[in-house]
Amino acid sequence: MGIHSVVLIGAGRVATQLGLTLIRHQIRILQVYSRTASSAASLAKVADSDFTDDLSNLNQQADLYIISVTDDSIRQIISRLNIKNKLVVHTSGSVPMEVLAPLSGSFGVFYPLNTFSKEKNINLSATPFCIEASDPHTEQNLLDLARIISSDVRLINSEQRAVIHLAAVFACNFTNFMMVNADEILKKQGISYEILLPLINETIGKLSTISPKEAQTGPALRNDQEIIKKHLEMLTNEPEKQLIYQLISEQIQTYFSKDKS
Amino acid sequence: MGIHSVVLIGAGRVATQLGLTLIRHQIRILQVYSRTASSAASLAKVADSDFTDDLSNLNQQADLYIISVTDDSIRQIISRLNIKNKLVVHTSGSVPMEVLAPLSGSFGVFYPLNTFSKEKNINLSATPFCIEASDPHTEQNLLDLARIISSDVRLINSEQRAVIHLAAVFACNFTNFMMVNADEILKKQGISYEILLPLINETIGKLSTISPKEAQTGPALRNDQEIIKKHLEMLTNEPEKQLIYQLISEQIQTYFSKDKS
Repeated sequence: MGIHSVVLIGAGRVATQLGLTLIRHQIRILQVYSRTASSAASLAKVADSDFTDDLSNLNQQADLYIISVTDDSIRQIISRLNIKNKLVVHTSGSVPMEVLAPLSGSFGVFYPLNTFSKEKNINLSATPFCIEASDPHTEQNLLDLARIISSDVRLINSEQRAVIHLAAVFACNFTNFMMVNADEILKKQGISYEILLPLINETIGKLSTISPKEAQTGPALRNDQEIIKKHLEMLTNEPEKQLIYQLISEQIQTYFSKDKS
Repeated sequence: MGIHSVVLIGAGRVATQLGLTLIRHQIRILQVYSRTASSAASLAKVADSDFTDDLSNLNQQADLYIISVTDDSIRQIISRLNIKNKLVVHTSGSVPMEVLAPLSGSFGVFYPLNTFSKEKNINLSATPFCIEASDPHTEQNLLDLARIISSDVRLINSEQRAVIHLAAVFACNFTNFMMVNADEILKKQGISYEILLPLINETIGKLSTISPKEAQTGPALRNDQEIIKKHLEMLTNEPEKQLIYQLISEQIQTYFSKDKS
């Protein structure tokens, strides 16, 4: 059979980018649900589909129902889901597959490991898709669907997926917050953030050829106490940034000195 | 006149990449100094130049002497420098230009804002070069030289340069350490780090079109206490990572809640 039609439950960033990608691969979006009618309507317009803000009103004909809402809301959505013997997945990094077990049909997880914006469309063709399923038949269907979208499709269980999501918080969210700090530091001197872009691109570009451990540089790694002290003094009036600088510098020193011994 | 020949004082990562770049642009390296003869010899071989490990033995004929050593060593090198009425620069982000004032000739700063590896050659053509000089004539000479290498050459005073370097520690060194943490978290589950590369590339790619502040995502931004709690529990046996997770999540929440008010 295969999956040819989808109902999107959620109209946020992941639902939007996943929906746009599915359409590009000739999968039909039959309906978009969001508790906010205007969000559902706006994604439905792009997806050329129906929309609803009433869960009891879900289209009953789709091959697949994709729940793509905040982790907090998934359980609540599931408890109110008004469909029988259907295939249902969620797209969350952290929520175990088993929350879907109360449903009458088959179920699984369809987790694209990336960061999603509303403003910026994303090409998912190289994005790792982490797949988990209630049974081998469903697994095959979800793998087939993911392989239409991406060249990197993996079977990942709930425990591994939670670890991957935790690692992603460090690699993506915390990294971005380091950039927020850098931006603020420069702004106070009237210097535009884009001066850092070549440095940032090189920092990340390295990681395709050497490991993060090999790629580490900077005053803390060199144990350059004079610079560290000077930097901490420069941050005297910004206690939050000073705290980050101190903690991370100490941890870099500890981590790499352990490594030598 | 212009600058046609250089002595490199230092044979580390910056000296090496700068030296290789200068050669590609037909600037001659006359000599490489390092206190470690083997390092001097190995860079000299690539640069087709002399080398020495004796500062009293410096070649006296170069148009420019580039001091590219650790910040700690710069002052010591300067106090022992055995050249008269020559143009001398250092390449440090944090050391004020005025440390070069005791020298008899003209002086300046030639700071390439990037991250340098020994293993990986770098293309400096888009790297910002931060230039500062003792006098207008020297300034022009250094600007001309930097413009041979890069399309992004700026006059930056010592105070601004120190701020840029501090921002770079956040954007590059601390960012890389977030990747070290992500790598370690995955390793414990036997998952290879490269699963994160598309996410990381997207995280950084965004920053060419939206600001870090607009690009922020993640559990802390969404104030998703359930996930934050779960992640902290997963890190129970790794107190260092738990500390980073807690501090940065709290700061993300504080920063973005301030922002709303």
